[in-house]
Amino acid sequence: MIARKLEVTYLPFDRTTRVPPGTTVFSAAHWIGLPIDSTCGGRGTCGKCKVRVIKGLADPETADHRQLRPQEIADGWRLSCQARIYDDMTCEVPQLLRVPKAATMGLGRLVILDPNVRKVYFELAEPSLHDQRSDVARLKDALTAEGHDMVAGVAVLRTLPRVFREAGFKVTAVLAGERLVAVEAGDTTGDCYGVAFDVGTTTLVGTLMNLRTGMAASVRSTLNGQAPFGADVISRISHGMNGPDAIRELQEAVVTTMNAVLDELYRETGVAPEQTYEAVVVGNVTMLHLLLGVDPSPLSMSPFTPAFMDELAVEAREVGLRIHPHGYLQTLPALGAYVGADIVAGVLATGVVREDRLRVFVDVGTNGEIVLGGAERALATAAPAGPAFEGSQIKCGMRATAGAIEGVQLGDGVELQVIGGDIPAEGICGSGLVDAVAQLLLAGLLDHSGRLRTPGDVPNHPLRDRLIEIDGVRAFLLADGVYLTQRDIRELQFAKGSIATGIKVLMDILGVRAEDLDEVLLGGSFGSYLNPESARVIGLVPPVDVARIIAVGNSAGEGAKIALLSYRERQVAFELPSRIEYVELSGRSDFNDSFISVLGFPHLDPADSPDQARIGSS
Amino acid sequence: MIARKLEVTYLPFDRTTRVPPGTTVFSAAHWIGLPIDSTCGGRGTCGKCKVRVIKGLADPETADHRQLRPQEIADGWRLSCQARIYDDMTCEVPQLLRVPKAATMGLGRLVILDPNVRKVYFELAEPSLHDQRSDVARLKDALTAEGHDMVAGVAVLRTLPRVFREAGFKVTAVLAGERLVAVEAGDTTGDCYGVAFDVGTTTLVGTLMNLRTGMAASVRSTLNGQAPFGADVISRISHGMNGPDAIRELQEAVVTTMNAVLDELYRETGVAPEQTYEAVVVGNVTMLHLLLGVDPSPLSMSPFTPAFMDELAVEAREVGLRIHPHGYLQTLPALGAYVGADIVAGVLATGVVREDRLRVFVDVGTNGEIVLGGAERALATAAPAGPAFEGSQIKCGMRATAGAIEGVQLGDGVELQVIGGDIPAEGICGSGLVDAVAQLLLAGLLDHSGRLRTPGDVPNHPLRDRLIEIDGVRAFLLADGVYLTQRDIRELQFAKGSIATGIKVLMDILGVRAEDLDEVLLGGSFGSYLNPESARVIGLVPPVDVARIIAVGNSAGEGAKIALLSYRERQVAFELPSRIEYVELSGRSDFNDSFISVLGFPHLDPADSPDQARIGSS
Repeated sequence: MIARKLEVTYLPFDRTTRVPPGTTVFSAAHWIGLPIDSTCGGRGTCGKCKVRVIKGLADPETADHRQLRPQEIADGWRLSCQARIYDDMTCEVPQLLRVPKAATMGLGRLVILDPNVRKVYFELAEPSLHDQRSDVARLKDALTAEGHDMVAGVAVLRTLPRVFREAGFKVTAVLAGERLVAVEAGDTTGDCYGVAFDVGTTTLVGTLMNLRTGMAASVRSTLNGQAPFGADVISRISHGMNGPDAIRELQEAVVTTMNAVLDELYRETGVAPEQTYEAVVVGNVTMLHLLLGVDPSPLSMSPFTPAFMDELAVEAREVGLRIHPHGYLQTLPALGAYVGADIVAGVLATGVVREDRLRVFVDVGTNGEIVLGGAERALATAAPAGPAFEGSQIKCGMRATAGAIEGVQLGDGVELQVIGGDIPAEGICGSGLVDAVAQLLLAGLLDHSGRLRTPGDVPNHPLRDRLIEIDGVRAFLLADGVYLTQRDIRELQFAKGSIATGIKVLMDILGVRAEDLDEVLLGGSFGSYLNPESARVIGLVPPVDVARIIAVGNSAGEGAKIALLSYRERQVAFELPSRIEYVELSGRSDFNDSFISVLGFPHLDPADSPDQARIGSS
Repeated sequence: MIARKLEVTYLPFDRTTRVPPGTTVFSAAHWIGLPIDSTCGGRGTCGKCKVRVIKGLADPETADHRQLRPQEIADGWRLSCQARIYDDMTCEVPQLLRVPKAATMGLGRLVILDPNVRKVYFELAEPSLHDQRSDVARLKDALTAEGHDMVAGVAVLRTLPRVFREAGFKVTAVLAGERLVAVEAGDTTGDCYGVAFDVGTTTLVGTLMNLRTGMAASVRSTLNGQAPFGADVISRISHGMNGPDAIRELQEAVVTTMNAVLDELYRETGVAPEQTYEAVVVGNVTMLHLLLGVDPSPLSMSPFTPAFMDELAVEAREVGLRIHPHGYLQTLPALGAYVGADIVAGVLATGVVREDRLRVFVDVGTNGEIVLGGAERALATAAPAGPAFEGSQIKCGMRATAGAIEGVQLGDGVELQVIGGDIPAEGICGSGLVDAVAQLLLAGLLDHSGRLRTPGDVPNHPLRDRLIEIDGVRAFLLADGVYLTQRDIRELQFAKGSIATGIKVLMDILGVRAEDLDEVLLGGSFGSYLNPESARVIGLVPPVDVARIIAVGNSAGEGAKIALLSYRERQVAFELPSRIEYVELSGRSDFNDSFISVLGFPHLDPADSPDQARIGSS
C-alpha cells in the first residue's frame, strides 16, 4: 500500500534521500540533516527557504507567487516548504540555516531550536482616522510583514482592545503555529515556556522547557492517577466500558496527574502557567484516547480500531490542562492501535527512520512495540507480551520500586542489585527477571527449552542448593523469601517469545538477518533498565554483538521534547505514519509459526558472547 | 488603495466582469449569475468546476494536480474555484450548475440552494484486521471519495466510537464547511436546519431555515434584551465601559434573547436544537462585538477602531447559543466601524455591487449607512444621523409601536395613519415625522429653510389653525396632544442633512450626479416604512423619480438567510470588504461644507413631483 519512494538530491552538498510522494523539499532536506534557512519554520510565509530546482521542476504554488518574483519562478526557484515531491528531483540550496541554535537530544540527535511557539514584539502604529484597521487586522498585518501567518480565535480576540490600549500598542504576540495564543503588554519575548509530557500507563513524566534557550527548566515524574482503575491499558479500557462517566473519570484522573506535575514544575521554577503556551503530549493510543475523553473500547477487541490516530491540536482548556488558558495541547500521531505516539516520539528521538543504517527499536512492556528499518524502508508492529516484564503474573514479581531486585549475577554465589541500595530484597522486577533467567541459562541451571534443572541434574554446581521446590513447582532461590519459579520462567518465555517473533516477522518482510542489523535500540522506561546482554541471552532481541544493543532511555519523553523545541522535527513526526508500514500480527500465520520456534532460548555463538564479568555491571 | 480591477470573460456566454486581483474564477462567475457546476461548493475537493483557460492561463495549484489529469492541465483546464485572477482572462465554462434548486430572495436575487452545512449518508465498510483505519480516517476517506474535505475537533471525535458501532457503521456525517459538526446514526439527511439572525440594536429577528428545501420553517422577532442598557449603540458601549462584567452582562442579554427566539422557533416547528447546525448572524459592529463578548469601547471615540471586522466562525457553545452543541455561528464581515455586517448582508440581498446599474443603498437609523456604486466600483460610508429617525429627541416622538403616527397626509384636513389602526394617536414615529415634514413643505406651511410659517403668514390656508405655539415655540398640531415643533423639524434637518451629505460625498468621489442614479434603495427596518416620496421631498435621498426609490425591507435579515442557504453567496459576502471602498466622513472638510448646504429642503423640479394623492398611500 506504500507508494514508490522518490529520490531527491540536494546540491551543492550532493546528498540524496528517498521519500514518499508528497513530502516537501524542505522536510526531506531536514530529514537528512540539511536545515534549509527559514524563519517561519516551513509555513510558506517568510520566503527564505527558496531553492532552485534543477530537475523535476513542478508548477509554482500560490505562496511562490506571493514570495518570489516572476523571473525567479521562471528560473526554477521555489519555496522548498511548499514544493512537494511528486517526481525524482534535484535542487540547489542557496542557504542553510546559519549558526542555528541547536541541542543534542535523544540518541545523539542534533535538534535545531525552532519551536512551534514563537513570540514577536511589536510597536504597532496607533490607529488614526487615516488608519482605522481593526485591532486584529493591525496585528495580522504586522505579523505578515515579519513572515508569520495568523489566525485568531474569539477568546484571544476578546483580550485585544484592552491590552493594545493599556500597552500603548507595544505588545508581544504569542503564536502557536499560526494560532494566536495571546497578546501580552510590552516586550515579554524573554519568557516563553512549553511542557513535554510522556503519559505512560504507569508513569507520567513532565518536562518544562524554556523555548527560548532550549533548556529543560525542570522535570517531574509521578504515577499515572489512573492506576486505581488497573495496571495496564486493558483494565483501563474495561473500566471505560462502564460508560461516559467512567471515561470522564479516567480522563480526570490523568489530567489531574498532569496538573499536579505542572504545579510542581511551576513551583520549582517560578514559571507561571500563563507563560507556558504549549504542551506536547505523547503516550500510547489508549492513554491519548483517555486523555482526550474518547472512548477507547474498540481498541480492546479485534480488529482493534482506534477512534483517531492522527496528531491533534486541542485547546488546553478543552481538557482542563493548567497552562495558558488559550494554549494548546499537541499530540503526535500513532502508527497503529498498539504502536502509539510514544513510539513515534521514540522513532523521532532515535532517528531510526532517518539514517541509512538498519536498526531495530524495541519498546518493551506489556506490549513490545517494534520499529525496524532505516531511511529506505521501515516497518512497525506490536507484539502482545503480557505483564511479565512489568513484574506482574510473576510469583515474587513487583514493580521497579525500592526492594525490587533489578540486577542479578550468578557466580559462586548470588549477587543482587536491589533498588534502594543496601536493603533486603522484597521481590523482583522486570529487568531483574530478565537478568535472573539469562544468568541461570549461562550458569547451566536452566536448559534451552526453559526447564529449570534439579539439584540432582547439577550435583557439583555451587548454586545447587538454591534449586528448590515451592508447592511442588521447581524454583530458584534468589534471596530470603524471593525466588523464581518454573512458571515464572514460562511466563517470561511467552513474553520474550512474542516480542522476538514480532521482530522476526518484520525482519522476514524486510528480508534481513540478524547480522545485517547495525543496532538494536531498547526504548521505554523498562528498556533503559534492561541489561542488553541479558536481553540477548534470553533471545528477546536478535543475536547481535552486545555492543550494538543500546538502551536509549525514555525515548518517548525525549521525542516529545524534540517536537516541542522544533517545528521541523514535529513535522517529521507527523509524517512518520506515511513513512512506516504498519504490520498487524493478529491472524498472521507466520507469527504463530515463529512464536513456537522462538519460545526456547537461543544457542548463541560463543564468539559473540562477552565474558560474564560484564553481565549485570552495566 | 484599491488595486486595479481585472477583466474576466466567460465563454460560451460571452459575459465579462471586472474583479479585484485574487478573486477566483468560480466566484467571479457566480457574481454575474453564472453558477459553475460544483458539488463541493468551491472548496477544491470535487473537481467539477473545471474550466478551460483561453487567455491568461496561470500555473496549476495543488488541487488541480489532485483532480485533473496531466493532459488536462497541459490543455489549460483548471479548477475554477482554485484559479485566482491575477491577469485579464478568458475562459470556457463547459458546465453550469444544472437545474439548480434556487429561490428568489432579497431584492429579486435568484439564490442557488448550496448551504455550507451538508449532510452525507454513508454505509461505511466495517473494520477488519485488514482494514484497521481509525474511525476518523474511515469517515474522512469516505468523505474524500465524495469530494468533501473534513476536519474533526475532539468534541465530535468523542462521539464516533459509540455512534459508529451502535449504527452498524451506517451513519450521516454533518459538515459545516469542512468542519465535522456531528455524526448521526442512520440516514438523517432529511432533517437539516440552520438559523439566520439579524441582531439589531432594537429588534432581533431569527429565521429558522430548512437547509434541504431552502424554505423558511418559521420566523420570530423580539426586542433585543440589551434594551435596558440604552436605546442606541453608544449607550450600550458606555455600559460596557464598566468593565468585563458589564460586557459579559451585555453578551448574556443578547444571547438570552437569541435563545428565547430559538426556543420559540423550535416549539413552533418541532425542529430540535440538535438538528440546527449553523447560525448566520448579522448586525452592526457593536452588536457583533457584544455578542462575542468583545470590548467595543474603542468604537465610541475617534478614530473608531473595532477589535475585528472580518467574518468569524465561532463554535456555538463558545457563546452559549442553543443550536447543535458542536454547531457554528458564522458572522459576516464589516466594511467599517459603523458599516457593519448588517449592511454587508443588505448589499448581498440587494446585489448593489453586483450589477452594472448605478445604485445607492441607504439604511436609515441612528446612523445612515450608505453604499453607492455598482459592479465597477462601489463606496461605503456611515453618516451620524442622531436619534431623530427613531423618534427620539422629538417632542412627541415614540418608537414605531401602537399609537404612533406613521403616515401623514395634508389636504383640506389632516389625514393620519396610526399604527394599530383605529386608535387615537399617541405620538409620532420616524416615518411619520418624515411624512409630516414633507407634507408641511408641500402644503406651503414650511419654508425651504425649515422655518414653520405662522397663521399670519398663510391667512387663507385651510390648516392655518393648526399652526400653534407651545411654550413659545412654533408647532403644528397633528392630533389631540400630538404636535410637531420647530425644534423637531430642526432635529430632522440635521439627521437628513447628515445622511444626504454622506450620499453627496460618495457621489462626488464617484463623479456621478443624481440623474445618473438608476435606483435609490431604502433598507433596514426603518427604510421599509419610509415613504419614498417624502424621503425625496425632504432631501434625505437624491432627487430621482420617485418610482426609482425602493424600500427593500429587512435587507440585513434577507442577506443573512442568503448566506445561510448558499455557500457561494457567503463567499461573495466575505469578499465585499475588498470590493467596496470605505470612506470615513469624520474630519473630511467636504463633509462639513456639504452639510451646511443641504440642511435646508430642496427645491425639486415640479416635473419630477407626482401628484399629492400618491403621498402617504404607499
